[in-house]
Amino acid sequence: MPVYKAPVEDVLFLLNDVFHIERFANLPGFADASADVVEAILGEAGRFCEGVLAPLNRVGDRQGCRRSDDGSVTTPEGFKQAYRQVVDGGWIGISVPQEYGGLGLPTALTQTVNEFMASANMAFAMYPGLTQGAIAALLRHGTAEQKSLYIPKMVAGDWTGTMNLTEPQCGTDLGLIRTKAVRQPDGSYKITGAKIFISAGEHDLAENIVHLVLARIEGAPEGTRGLSLFVVPKVMPDPDGTLGARNAVSCGSIEEKMGIHGNATCVMNYDGATGWLVAEENHGLQAMFVMMNEARLGVGVQGLALSEVAYQNAAQYAKDRLQGRAITGAKFADKPADPIIVHPDVRRILMTIRAFNEAARALILWTALNSDVAHRSDNAKDRESADDRLGLLTPVIKGVLTDLGFANAVMAQQVFGGHGYIAEWGMEQFVRDARIPMIYEGANGIQALDLVGRKLGKDGGRAVMALFGEMQAYIKEQAADAAMKPLVEPLGKALGHLQQATLWFAQNAMAKPDNAGAGATDYMHLFGLVVLGYMWCRIAAAAQRRVADDKSGRMNAKLVTARFFMERMLPETAAHLARIQSGAASLMELPAEAF
Amino acid sequence: MPVYKAPVEDVLFLLNDVFHIERFANLPGFADASADVVEAILGEAGRFCEGVLAPLNRVGDRQGCRRSDDGSVTTPEGFKQAYRQVVDGGWIGISVPQEYGGLGLPTALTQTVNEFMASANMAFAMYPGLTQGAIAALLRHGTAEQKSLYIPKMVAGDWTGTMNLTEPQCGTDLGLIRTKAVRQPDGSYKITGAKIFISAGEHDLAENIVHLVLARIEGAPEGTRGLSLFVVPKVMPDPDGTLGARNAVSCGSIEEKMGIHGNATCVMNYDGATGWLVAEENHGLQAMFVMMNEARLGVGVQGLALSEVAYQNAAQYAKDRLQGRAITGAKFADKPADPIIVHPDVRRILMTIRAFNEAARALILWTALNSDVAHRSDNAKDRESADDRLGLLTPVIKGVLTDLGFANAVMAQQVFGGHGYIAEWGMEQFVRDARIPMIYEGANGIQALDLVGRKLGKDGGRAVMALFGEMQAYIKEQAADAAMKPLVEPLGKALGHLQQATLWFAQNAMAKPDNAGAGATDYMHLFGLVVLGYMWCRIAAAAQRRVADDKSGRMNAKLVTARFFMERMLPETAAHLARIQSGAASLMELPAEAF
Repeated sequence: MPVYKAPVEDVLFLLNDVFHIERFANLPGFADASADVVEAILGEAGRFCEGVLAPLNRVGDRQGCRRSDDGSVTTPEGFKQAYRQVVDGGWIGISVPQEYGGLGLPTALTQTVNEFMASANMAFAMYPGLTQGAIAALLRHGTAEQKSLYIPKMVAGDWTGTMNLTEPQCGTDLGLIRTKAVRQPDGSYKITGAKIFISAGEHDLAENIVHLVLARIEGAPEGTRGLSLFVVPKVMPDPDGTLGARNAVSCGSIEEKMGIHGNATCVMNYDGATGWLVAEENHGLQAMFVMMNEARLGVGVQGLALSEVAYQNAAQYAKDRLQGRAITGAKFADKPADPIIVHPDVRRILMTIRAFNEAARALILWTALNSDVAHRSDNAKDRESADDRLGLLTPVIKGVLTDLGFANAVMAQQVFGGHGYIAEWGMEQFVRDARIPMIYEGANGIQALDLVGRKLGKDGGRAVMALFGEMQAYIKEQAADAAMKPLVEPLGKALGHLQQATLWFAQNAMAKPDNAGAGATDYMHLFGLVVLGYMWCRIAAAAQRRVADDKSGRMNAKLVTARFFMERMLPETAAHLARIQSGAASLMELPAEAF
Repeated sequence: MPVYKAPVEDVLFLLNDVFHIERFANLPGFADASADVVEAILGEAGRFCEGVLAPLNRVGDRQGCRRSDDGSVTTPEGFKQAYRQVVDGGWIGISVPQEYGGLGLPTALTQTVNEFMASANMAFAMYPGLTQGAIAALLRHGTAEQKSLYIPKMVAGDWTGTMNLTEPQCGTDLGLIRTKAVRQPDGSYKITGAKIFISAGEHDLAENIVHLVLARIEGAPEGTRGLSLFVVPKVMPDPDGTLGARNAVSCGSIEEKMGIHGNATCVMNYDGATGWLVAEENHGLQAMFVMMNEARLGVGVQGLALSEVAYQNAAQYAKDRLQGRAITGAKFADKPADPIIVHPDVRRILMTIRAFNEAARALILWTALNSDVAHRSDNAKDRESADDRLGLLTPVIKGVLTDLGFANAVMAQQVFGGHGYIAEWGMEQFVRDARIPMIYEGANGIQALDLVGRKLGKDGGRAVMALFGEMQAYIKEQAADAAMKPLVEPLGKALGHLQQATLWFAQNAMAKPDNAGAGATDYMHLFGLVVLGYMWCRIAAAAQRRVADDKSGRMNAKLVTARFFMERMLPETAAHLARIQSGAASLMELPAEAF
């Protein structure tokens, strides 16, 4: 059975030594997050994920969710009890304002706990994860009544949340949504239509499910400008939260899918279900984007989470499995063979994954801190620049962390040889589960277009120029440090590639927008490598300060891994640049029928 | 349901226009392979795969194989009837000498039919595929009696074959094999032990199963030098082939695995089973390597096969699925949205896969022709150089074609968005099935070590120098052609990277062999890109000759795809070189406990 150990120490190192979370103490909620409180919370969350959620991961995969003829859905054995513990632990509302029953603590803690939960049991973690997204959308766009009715119930875990966008004829292109909303005399709406791919759409974990649904009000314009967002509860609540009659929304079927079997992916049928408008009429997409942006960061976290747990198991196997001898001579002559970790090609895999994991975790925490500044700071300028950065990094985190998270799960599986392909070892489940984050919440190609088509040019390129400026200044400053020079020099070269690529778009994509589309995915990955490289420099700088006093070897391991990243992963930036600069011509030349 | 159309026209173009198969007419069997015979065989094989095997692919995945308490195994519905058709079509023995009931035709035809079968139904195709491997081993190493007893039955499909190497404690490291063989007075041996991961180990498709088993004769040396190869039939045959009593070998269980559910992956228990020695005592590994090399080419073909069928389905979906508008303005203003093939990022995926598929198919056919020269030519010098090339290219084909075949299946799945994750669309099965070729018949890391550690230096580097020389001469010759120059120039640069990497190993891996291990996987992929690029140049040169008269657009599509390959895929060679040249230091520095 797979192992999992929550990387609590690494998170604490990042928060304390790399990002100096104490410097944010002026933000609301951060004063409560003292070092010992954070350590206690993460320690407890880690133990829960290791001891309760991880052992249920394979059970969930094997049993899946079952729909009964009455439309009810049963989750796998043990999920209900585990969900109750999540609720009792208060994990859902760690960062939700206290007035709604949350703890108001930094978002970085929520993202960390979510990482632990997704490593231990991704299909399970999606239930509270989607609730958090729904809370975020209602916090920002709900009426006062909606907030006070729904959010405390969701924080308490009594009600869970979903997002309902996709329909059979529309995924990426939400302008094609057909689900209808008809205004009723009492101000509510009757919602009619079918939604597909609704994660956690129906289940037995909580007494109610709060669906956030995109629909088109009768007579509204076509396209995305005619979409409105509605809150549609499974069971109708009184204003005080007492549950009444069942609403006309039901699960029509459960999808059979590649992975995340423990999460119910539902076809949801709305047959004149009662809903209430969230945000203004025809402004539903903007409101839904709040939820989607929250969700996109969360999906990036899933990419990291699966890469982390896959790494831990591959590393353990590589130390246990005796097979062959080191090319430089037997290392354990007394054993029938050496453990396979003596082989450079096995280490290449392990180093590649850990070089991703630590930097990806840093990137998420850094972005979470920016997110808190954007939402909590009393300084408008700080809020603006943090929000710029959040918007810029969200598609990078979603796209790059899930692409590489999946690739890493596949590499970790490879360490097991044939055993990696066999269900009982658990590695193939990680691969199947890790595949969906590349697709949902906007397929990664869409993330790349969001980055290149929207985020780069927004506000005259303000966000990207600020980030490039920060990195350039950092590189210049650190280059004077002999220990840091071997790291910031390659980063500077990679940043140069990113800047060249950015310039190339500016010069070549205005007249020929296909040039932007043709280079978008490469640009996103080029961007990701540069910011991960930047994270490694910051990690290394912090590790450098502690390495002399560190008996554990952990700080030295970070310095070695940083070097590995620069030598082995950053060189890819040149290939991305070459592809981007080759433009769209050879992609667009063939007629469709030639494919 | 997934579609599949066998790429017969492309194969004919490669055999006739690119490789001029008629020039090999002096080889035994090739005179029978006239253009119309080849076309008729491939056409018939294609129709069979499209019409019979492809519709059974999902059935096989859903039902899997079932083991009964008596140890018998039932294959999925329809497999028996389809297998009968494979047998009746004579597909198993296309390239087996006529004296054993085969057709003696070129190996290129066998590889092509195997590609079609694996595209249509990989789990099914493994049953005849393993039989072909067993035939190859017996042809080369069996006694005259063994050949005449077993091979005709296997060609006729009455008996199938397996290879039994892996045991729980040994996969890559066959020196750890514990299965024992005890010599009997009649010259036979009693085999005792347990083998795992035995594909097609037990089934209901044929009346007998011929197991080729590696075991250690009592008193033999430890390690691989004490291994012998045995033929162990499931049912004991009389010398004339009449079946007698059941042998003491049985299927203990079937593995539950990620994919290829239609193929029974068995634990095989040998309880004093009767076997006969193949090849000399303690020379089993060399004999098994014949089968493994044959199998490795076949596994490379599987990588291509899944990439091809995944491509076809993704291309079709991209032309059908209406979603969003072209960035340059609506292409189908009368429809609610444009088909997604208008988007450059979707085309990037499709072009990447097709740029692999066509060149990979060329590489396989070219290698198959070399294989026939190596085995059939009456000129010793020709045999030697063809055998050199076969040995050099085998690990590249196995490793690179399966790594990229899997990556391509994943990319093709991405084109489907959420539908790609749902079982009914079939794409997720392609991904699960495509994962195993990277692992079995020697995990791809082992292929890389075989290439770098064995094949490069063999006979003073004769094979690699001959190939580099041929490519250099070709590049020089074609550079004078204005149409070819834009293709051979980037190939020349990539070949330069490959030569630098080769030189770097020569200079840095003798004293520090970890430097070879650390760069092996990158070197294999660098090698693969260069030979695929060489294939594209040869395809383009042939297409160039026909493009003026080609009304179908197919020749122009090849020229565009060749350019795409050079612009988008070859730039990766520089990153591989940089990684190789970074050496082993940052991989080997950490102690095992730091992982």
